Amino acid sequence: MNKYLPLSKNHQGWIRRLHQKKYRNEEKMFIAEGIHSLKEATATSSYPIKEIVIISGISESLRNILPDDIPIYGCSEREMKAISTEETPQGVLTICRQREVTFEDISAHSSDLLLYLDRIADPGNLGTIIRTAAWFNVDKILLSPLCVDPFNTKVIRASAGGIFRTEMFQSIEPELLSRFAKKNNYKLIAAVPEGGTPVHQWKRSKKDIILLGQEASGLSRDIIKYADESVSIPGKGRVESLNLAVAAAIILYEISKGYLPTRDYYS
Amino acid sequence: MNKYLPLSKNHQGWIRRLHQKKYRNEEKMFIAEGIHSLKEATATSSYPIKEIVIISGISESLRNILPDDIPIYGCSEREMKAISTEETPQGVLTICRQREVTFEDISAHSSDLLLYLDRIADPGNLGTIIRTAAWFNVDKILLSPLCVDPFNTKVIRASAGGIFRTEMFQSIEPELLSRFAKKNNYKLIAAVPEGGTPVHQWKRSKKDIILLGQEASGLSRDIIKYADESVSIPGKGRVESLNLAVAAAIILYEISKGYLPTRDYYS
Repeated sequence: MNKYLPLSKNHQGWIRRLHQKKYRNEEKMFIAEGIHSLKEATATSSYPIKEIVIISGISESLRNILPDDIPIYGCSEREMKAISTEETPQGVLTICRQREVTFEDISAHSSDLLLYLDRIADPGNLGTIIRTAAWFNVDKILLSPLCVDPFNTKVIRASAGGIFRTEMFQSIEPELLSRFAKKNNYKLIAAVPEGGTPVHQWKRSKKDIILLGQEASGLSRDIIKYADESVSIPGKGRVESLNLAVAAAIILYEISKGYLPTRDYYS
Repeated sequence: MNKYLPLSKNHQGWIRRLHQKKYRNEEKMFIAEGIHSLKEATATSSYPIKEIVIISGISESLRNILPDDIPIYGCSEREMKAISTEETPQGVLTICRQREVTFEDISAHSSDLLLYLDRIADPGNLGTIIRTAAWFNVDKILLSPLCVDPFNTKVIRASAGGIFRTEMFQSIEPELLSRFAKKNNYKLIAAVPEGGTPVHQWKRSKKDIILLGQEASGLSRDIIKYADESVSIPGKGRVESLNLAVAAAIILYEISKGYLPTRDYYS
């Protein structure tokens, strides 16, 4: 039987401050909400769990997935509502440690498909892209400076566990990306709303980095100038553009589908 | 020069009530926010504009796109904030009339690809699906009972103008859909998370209706039992599932791409 530790007012205040990017980065922590995130955090080793906060009267089934070696704090429903960012909290918060990964760590690996996101502004879009990348087995995502914080609670939520299955490399300047690509034989492929090779006619190189730009203004000139090729998504154009996460998904699908099984959980 | 009509307190209250489904349906109106929606509403005849509300001091460039024959109300920035659902309103609200379209109206047309959405709960997902459908030239969307209201302001916003380029058919029971499909030679194709034909190997019929189910529980049994075939999206499965709007987009892309130009605005 788990005995929950008491959650002080000070402690609650500390958790609430983690809703803000500034404090998350100072503390090098982030909050993942809900049961699914707890399961993913315990099943993977991407981000070590610091502590878990749970509504004290929660059901037995949830108790069974709580790890033995991590501090677990109990709170009331009301307290959970105050520290959660969800309108209807599921009753469990997992607080994880951010991990520092440097850009150079990539070189050692040999992923042949990477994603570079240029100044993505919407946390829902970033989270959905992480989720989709995880589905298509893209396990490394590079972020430009000025991207929304990948440890924002809304990003974590929209990633549906994907955050625990992908590595995030932050604040990568276009110029650094270009040098990295040259050195490691990656081609830089710009996803553009029009004028690129239709993505279903485009042929992959051995190693590619797909570049996706900000919701409103697309890829910046600073990054476009380094692109080796560009791709676009065909469409009849009754609307001006596709949603960014949708565009990312279509491109990842198109260039991955030949290599993937229909379904193969957690391999 | 446009002279704006004064916006009374009562009138402001009436607009705020349109944020609620109940009042929208009583009044048969909906709110589309922002400049892009105003342009789309004036460029199309899908939903007649009842009135426009605008911040009085707004720039000349916006004045130029205001129609002459529709009442235009002026308000302060503060009043706009109170009647808008956006955190940072763009300064213009277009209030449109909902239009009653009956299911039988479809038969007369000959769309060979329709979309049926079963109990979609999230307004962002529904709006994004409408946007994507418009991009891929699917101009009719069928909604089951208990779907989120397509005239919800968040749906309209996420549709990025797509709402004005697609027709919505609401509250269609699975049994009615099945009879309609049989009578008009449509096949019903269920999108399922696993076990269906990989969508890139699936061959389209002459006339198909793609069935997409609710975020958490997927397609209900009531509709699955009528399906002629099922399709799935290949994936390595580092996450449990794809976001619904992403799954819809991948399927629409895959089955449309052969027929579509790279870009062709507003044809």
